[in-house]
Amino acid sequence: MAATIASPADALAFVARFDTFLLDCDGVIWLGNTLVPGVADTLAWLRSLGKRILFVTNNSTKSRADYLRKFTTLGLQASVDEIFGSSYAAAYYIAHQLDFPKDKRVYVCGMSGICDELASEGIAYCGAHEDTDHITDMAHLGDIKTDPSIGAVLFGFDININYTKLARAFTYVHANPGCHFLATNSDLTFPAGGTVYPGTGALLAALSAPLGREPTVLGKPHQPMLDVIVNKYHLDRSRTCMIGDRLDTDIEFGKRGGLSTLLVMTGVTTQKELASSAIVPDFAIDSLGSLGTKYGPGSQ
Amino acid sequence: MAATIASPADALAFVARFDTFLLDCDGVIWLGNTLVPGVADTLAWLRSLGKRILFVTNNSTKSRADYLRKFTTLGLQASVDEIFGSSYAAAYYIAHQLDFPKDKRVYVCGMSGICDELASEGIAYCGAHEDTDHITDMAHLGDIKTDPSIGAVLFGFDININYTKLARAFTYVHANPGCHFLATNSDLTFPAGGTVYPGTGALLAALSAPLGREPTVLGKPHQPMLDVIVNKYHLDRSRTCMIGDRLDTDIEFGKRGGLSTLLVMTGVTTQKELASSAIVPDFAIDSLGSLGTKYGPGSQ
Repeated sequence: MAATIASPADALAFVARFDTFLLDCDGVIWLGNTLVPGVADTLAWLRSLGKRILFVTNNSTKSRADYLRKFTTLGLQASVDEIFGSSYAAAYYIAHQLDFPKDKRVYVCGMSGICDELASEGIAYCGAHEDTDHITDMAHLGDIKTDPSIGAVLFGFDININYTKLARAFTYVHANPGCHFLATNSDLTFPAGGTVYPGTGALLAALSAPLGREPTVLGKPHQPMLDVIVNKYHLDRSRTCMIGDRLDTDIEFGKRGGLSTLLVMTGVTTQKELASSAIVPDFAIDSLGSLGTKYGPGSQ
Repeated sequence: MAATIASPADALAFVARFDTFLLDCDGVIWLGNTLVPGVADTLAWLRSLGKRILFVTNNSTKSRADYLRKFTTLGLQASVDEIFGSSYAAAYYIAHQLDFPKDKRVYVCGMSGICDELASEGIAYCGAHEDTDHITDMAHLGDIKTDPSIGAVLFGFDININYTKLARAFTYVHANPGCHFLATNSDLTFPAGGTVYPGTGALLAALSAPLGREPTVLGKPHQPMLDVIVNKYHLDRSRTCMIGDRLDTDIEFGKRGGLSTLLVMTGVTTQKELASSAIVPDFAIDSLGSLGTKYGPGSQ
């Protein structure tokens, strides 16, 4: 059973155990475009105690710079170096953890977040917007051919997904020996406007099903993302806590990686789901806002 | 082990056992746009013996009328009533085997073959070409809403597949109680120009993965297609033989349905694959052309 943080003493004991907090964003820091009450105070308190804060998100449509604009708009202090989206995780992985040849390119299914982060790491890429103008006649399918300059396919959410992009990505992985097959995340759906829509994991299934092969995923709960974070910041896993609102991504991500975990109840997980879940966080709290206000220095 | 048809006596004994032959097209009748030698003679022989011939194909991009043009172009005799594509199978299934309300519509991901066959059965539909002009801004996702007039989603191959079509299809099945979820076929790839490309089954995975649900499939080897054929033509399964070039679709389709099966070696299956396959046809022959020429009346 998760230890509930429900008093100033609980909060102090909790924060003392860790040097670094990895924070999911949507459902933890904000809900859509609304800041969770008290979160600004909690972040300020953790910073005042010298804790490292990293924002870890699966949404690949945004770059770190895009996220920073969102933090600023919501009146939150943050820096690009604290933001770790799955698009940046993928770019960092290709640049620093793959032995990716300088003369190879990455074929991208995805949006500007991925393209911007690949550019930030100096990685050549193609696809994405280029292939939004697509083949509409079966007779031109032969234009899709293998290309030895493609060393990796990187697949993220793309609202302009089309058959040309899928067929190119399929062809490169299928026919290029050694072509890496990477994805930013594998969420089957994402919430928006009170409902859910097919997510990156859904689009990705159209590629992994015919390939008979799963990609390396640079998003939660998959460990390559955590390995990248630990590698970049030289983190001590025993002094790191993952904070999130989802059991199957955030909490599973931390637990698999040997981190401690804190579940917040401001997002998708209900008390009933928590009570019956096989994935059990180390800690639970009503809201990240409460940590720095109701139970934090504001309470003294 | 399959009984090989390799003499005029074998051929005569084989044809005597059946009243109806279900024939796959690509790999059996033709290879791309080239007629398999001798097939015209074989079909003429079977017709002269009073056998019923039905052409059964998974390709949903063509209507029966489209297929008839292909038969005519290749100099083969055929009639619309003998052609059974997965697009027609789906239309027939909705019209005759589902209790599909007259005030409901079918949402289509697919090409003109599906639309033409739904129209031929008097079924109202939407989607398809209408949604080729798609949402390109995440802010407009809210335009995709559930629609109680949609009673079924029918998914086939669509070279103009896009996120709007996927999200609409997902939303209708996910949020409309009782909305049928149908697909014309589930082939993960299709061959073209000496390679393979992602097929209907690949695109379909982008829908079935987030739905956590598989569709009713009106293509080989799935039995709803055979049930439609048997129902329409009042076939005696014990006097019907499925002829095809693929073990996992054609032969599996016949075997699961209680038909006899004949594998031809002019398509994708090699002798080596046949020797090691767990799916064993009742009969095998080098080519459908040989049945009516080398071993048929032409040999006497």
